Amino acid sequence: MPSYTAPTQDMQFVLHEVLKVSHDDTPGYADLDRDFTGAILEEAGKIASGVLAPLNASGDAEGCRLENGMVVTPSGFKEAFAELKAGGWTAIDGDPAYGGQGLPYLMSCATGEIFVSANMAFNMYQGLTHGAYSAIQAHGTEAQKAAYLAKLVGCDWTGTMNLTEPHCGTDLGLMRTKAEPQEDGSYRITGQKIFISAGDHDLAENVIHLVLAKAPGGGEGTKGISLFIVPKVLVNADGSLGARNAVSVGKIEEKMGIHGNATCVMNYDGATGWLLGDLHKGMRAMFTMMNEARLSVGLQGYAVAEAAYQHARAYARERLQGRAVTGPENPADPADPLIVHPDIRRNLMAQKAFVEGARMLTYWGAALVDRAQRGGDAASEGLISLLTPVIKGFLTDKGFESTVNAQQVFGGHGYIEEQGMSQFVRDARITMIYEGANGVQALDLVARKLAADGGKPIMGFFDMVKGFIKENEGHGELKAGFLDPLKAASKDLQAAGMFFMAEGMKNPNAALAGSYDFMSLFGHVCMGLMWSRAALAAHNALERGDGDADFYRAKLATGRYYMARELPATALRLARIQSGADPVMALSAEAF
Amino acid sequence: MPSYTAPTQDMQFVLHEVLKVSHDDTPGYADLDRDFTGAILEEAGKIASGVLAPLNASGDAEGCRLENGMVVTPSGFKEAFAELKAGGWTAIDGDPAYGGQGLPYLMSCATGEIFVSANMAFNMYQGLTHGAYSAIQAHGTEAQKAAYLAKLVGCDWTGTMNLTEPHCGTDLGLMRTKAEPQEDGSYRITGQKIFISAGDHDLAENVIHLVLAKAPGGGEGTKGISLFIVPKVLVNADGSLGARNAVSVGKIEEKMGIHGNATCVMNYDGATGWLLGDLHKGMRAMFTMMNEARLSVGLQGYAVAEAAYQHARAYARERLQGRAVTGPENPADPADPLIVHPDIRRNLMAQKAFVEGARMLTYWGAALVDRAQRGGDAASEGLISLLTPVIKGFLTDKGFESTVNAQQVFGGHGYIEEQGMSQFVRDARITMIYEGANGVQALDLVARKLAADGGKPIMGFFDMVKGFIKENEGHGELKAGFLDPLKAASKDLQAAGMFFMAEGMKNPNAALAGSYDFMSLFGHVCMGLMWSRAALAAHNALERGDGDADFYRAKLATGRYYMARELPATALRLARIQSGADPVMALSAEAF
Repeated sequence: MPSYTAPTQDMQFVLHEVLKVSHDDTPGYADLDRDFTGAILEEAGKIASGVLAPLNASGDAEGCRLENGMVVTPSGFKEAFAELKAGGWTAIDGDPAYGGQGLPYLMSCATGEIFVSANMAFNMYQGLTHGAYSAIQAHGTEAQKAAYLAKLVGCDWTGTMNLTEPHCGTDLGLMRTKAEPQEDGSYRITGQKIFISAGDHDLAENVIHLVLAKAPGGGEGTKGISLFIVPKVLVNADGSLGARNAVSVGKIEEKMGIHGNATCVMNYDGATGWLLGDLHKGMRAMFTMMNEARLSVGLQGYAVAEAAYQHARAYARERLQGRAVTGPENPADPADPLIVHPDIRRNLMAQKAFVEGARMLTYWGAALVDRAQRGGDAASEGLISLLTPVIKGFLTDKGFESTVNAQQVFGGHGYIEEQGMSQFVRDARITMIYEGANGVQALDLVARKLAADGGKPIMGFFDMVKGFIKENEGHGELKAGFLDPLKAASKDLQAAGMFFMAEGMKNPNAALAGSYDFMSLFGHVCMGLMWSRAALAAHNALERGDGDADFYRAKLATGRYYMARELPATALRLARIQSGADPVMALSAEAF
Repeated sequence: MPSYTAPTQDMQFVLHEVLKVSHDDTPGYADLDRDFTGAILEEAGKIASGVLAPLNASGDAEGCRLENGMVVTPSGFKEAFAELKAGGWTAIDGDPAYGGQGLPYLMSCATGEIFVSANMAFNMYQGLTHGAYSAIQAHGTEAQKAAYLAKLVGCDWTGTMNLTEPHCGTDLGLMRTKAEPQEDGSYRITGQKIFISAGDHDLAENVIHLVLAKAPGGGEGTKGISLFIVPKVLVNADGSLGARNAVSVGKIEEKMGIHGNATCVMNYDGATGWLLGDLHKGMRAMFTMMNEARLSVGLQGYAVAEAAYQHARAYARERLQGRAVTGPENPADPADPLIVHPDIRRNLMAQKAFVEGARMLTYWGAALVDRAQRGGDAASEGLISLLTPVIKGFLTDKGFESTVNAQQVFGGHGYIEEQGMSQFVRDARITMIYEGANGVQALDLVARKLAADGGKPIMGFFDMVKGFIKENEGHGELKAGFLDPLKAASKDLQAAGMFFMAEGMKNPNAALAGSYDFMSLFGHVCMGLMWSRAALAAHNALERGDGDADFYRAKLATGRYYMARELPATALRLARIQSGADPVMALSAEAF
């Protein structure tokens, strides 16, 4: 059965040598010195390895069940959740005014990675609460903040997002759930919502549902949608819990994975709700949750891949099978370990280069969020808005692929549930789908984010890449292995952008037929930039001669792998994009 | 719940317009006229849609169970198996001397595709029997043939392959199962075998296990391995069933998918077995089964993808979500069907182009088998030996990817087991692993098959591609869309081969680090050749003006998609190969 160890050395490398967080002027970052973040990550690692990881496989096998209309989570989840709360882990970046620890969002992501790697399904209960907390903090009235934030900040109550209905997923304009205004200022919410993660459970005494619904007078489509706070148990004026609200669990879905998290059909039968934010502006308020959720899903993509990689690596070192083609490396035993075989290396290098690159990209994204929200920096706001669909789409596509690679290392044993590798694949699969399927991320990227703010964010990104290359061209060692491939990849991305500008005006299908490839191309360039920054940091550390030289040399070698073997994918993506709409759109719907 | 319709029009196109089977001088092919094959495929389609497909999801949900040491298959499997046998489907290419239908292997593949698409797990019971039949036919004594073939030919008894042991998968030299010679000429077989598909069940009264074991005097490693026939129930001299043999099911594995097929731990406790083929030459005899099995697994890869594609296509036509970017196409309803969206098209085109191309490649491979075995053609024997790892590895990698694409079309609904899309993904996943994990296929291709027979087969392949291009360069319409990209892709493949020749001599790791990419590159070139041949056939039919013009036009458009959007992957594969061993082999085992 898989175990997990938090990769704290690599996390510290990203925080302190790539991002140099304690030298960043974002409010709160000065406190993030190496000892402080190290202590946090080590402690998070302990609870992850000791408490959460042991419940991962059992949670998958046992799943959630509905008893008397209430969801019962798998054995041990309740106790583990209590322990997480007691340690303050569920409130790490919450506002101290409501009892949070007040740390930057970045630290919530770093610890979140650890918890997700150990047990993704379990961690979703607090992940969704984080989103609900943020939405109420951003859009709630003072009374709403007072009523909910202190409870949500540390998961005394948990939160959910209610968007999807049976006939409407991406296209929320088709929504049927209704909100009827009442005389006391509340609304009666009626309708059915599906795919509600953490929709109910036994980990907290209340669940605060944030529900999109149509209130009268808002017009057609998404314009008529508002966001409502609908508690499972009504809250009295004094903050105590009152009567049960008219919201119930219709059923728990049978899913491919994340069995430890209850995905519920929620029925609202005239439930009492309160408007959150402005009437008919619910989409905007919901996007506060969605953008954060999308970053977290990108994180899930590589965090599960990290866990899968750890097990594949251990198996490749232990399992004796065949001999190295260059002669026995383990002559005392009847066979060499799998890791001597070049194709196993290829597989492991792909996993390692992906998870380490993805970690840098995600932490960088989280730092941009902090810079935007804590530092009020508009350029960072624009950049993270641009990068969010890339982080969500690319890291989950590649994260899933990486878990499949990890499973493959086990051969037939990987297909047996007992080994735990199947679970990583099944769990990772949802990350490509929820919070906007990856095709929708690609659409968001190409149709909205590229042209946003007159193209400033994308231009800023290109300038940043160019600037980095120029600044470091003097490093002979970096040039051929890192900077030259990064330059070529960035050129491919620019060429794709130019193609969209030239062709998209005439035929929007030409841009949209290439949107998925563009997302992937962009993801590769981001990874190439991250690996180049990592190489610079490792190179500098080796020049200084301090620290763990083996670690830095491995970092450089892993980066070289990415630049030589993965980054050339940008040319393929560009070729696909430049083939335009015709190959994709030629058939009539009937001809499929 | 998914339904399935056999794509008989496309199958007929491949048989009669691409392969032109009835004009082929392979023995038995002259009988394969259009009406005859059409009738067979239609009938197979009926039983697939009416009997097998309805048991696919229920078989997955119910799985197999062990009762009093015997495997019980899911409800309905027994009756369906009886129906399949009664229709003669299980004996389609068996020798008429033993009661088979005597049709070419090609027709067994074509009907096999239909049955696998409808219910992969179910079809494995007869698939493995086919392998056991072939091994006994090729290597058995006359007495063994008389005793077993008439029973195996139509699945009155079924067969298994027993290779893997807990500590030995790919590396069969580590095998521990022992065979001790007895005075009566039989052997006592003792050991444990794992991952035995169809290891036991209630569909037939006997199971004939073909078991690899070490008999005394054979020496170390794979040299000491022999193959044995070990029936579940011993067979008396008169052919009647005797006592139970000392072989039992240890347990049924809990797997990611193919739940309808019992994957068993088999315990041999001094079981009685008989040598099949020569002593200590068991690997050779087993490879008779393995090569056939590998082709069948490649077939499974795309056959499951075909079924998944059919459902994704139907969902994309029905599900209303969003509006076409070029203006509403379904103004009467509140939204357009998914299929109007370019990124959904990209996804569906990728699936369609893959399954149709894979079908051509597999049928071509089957025709090569017939030409080699029925026609005694050595060149075909060499070519199919070269192509087998490509067909197995490439079609299962892409087949799995294709089922993931199909699942993605469903958004969140794809993740719910009820929709059936998860099952396709979970079932398809095993095809990349069993009968030699795909990394082992790549190794086989690069380390053995490329240099086999002085490189004659691969040179023959290149000549064939070149000849085809030269012969058809006059077709202006084919040149830019098909022949030019095929030429470029074929050049990439040749360049990769040259790189291996130049570098592999100095450093075998340089070739092996690129083996997986080479397999993929080769697969793409094969698909490019197939699509070019299909384009020629469709072009000719349109020129003649007979037949279903819409079908031919769709065929050309689908081919153009493949050539423009998928085939350029060869350049990426070549770049990865040419980066050599360093990026892959740089780290020490400890540095991962």
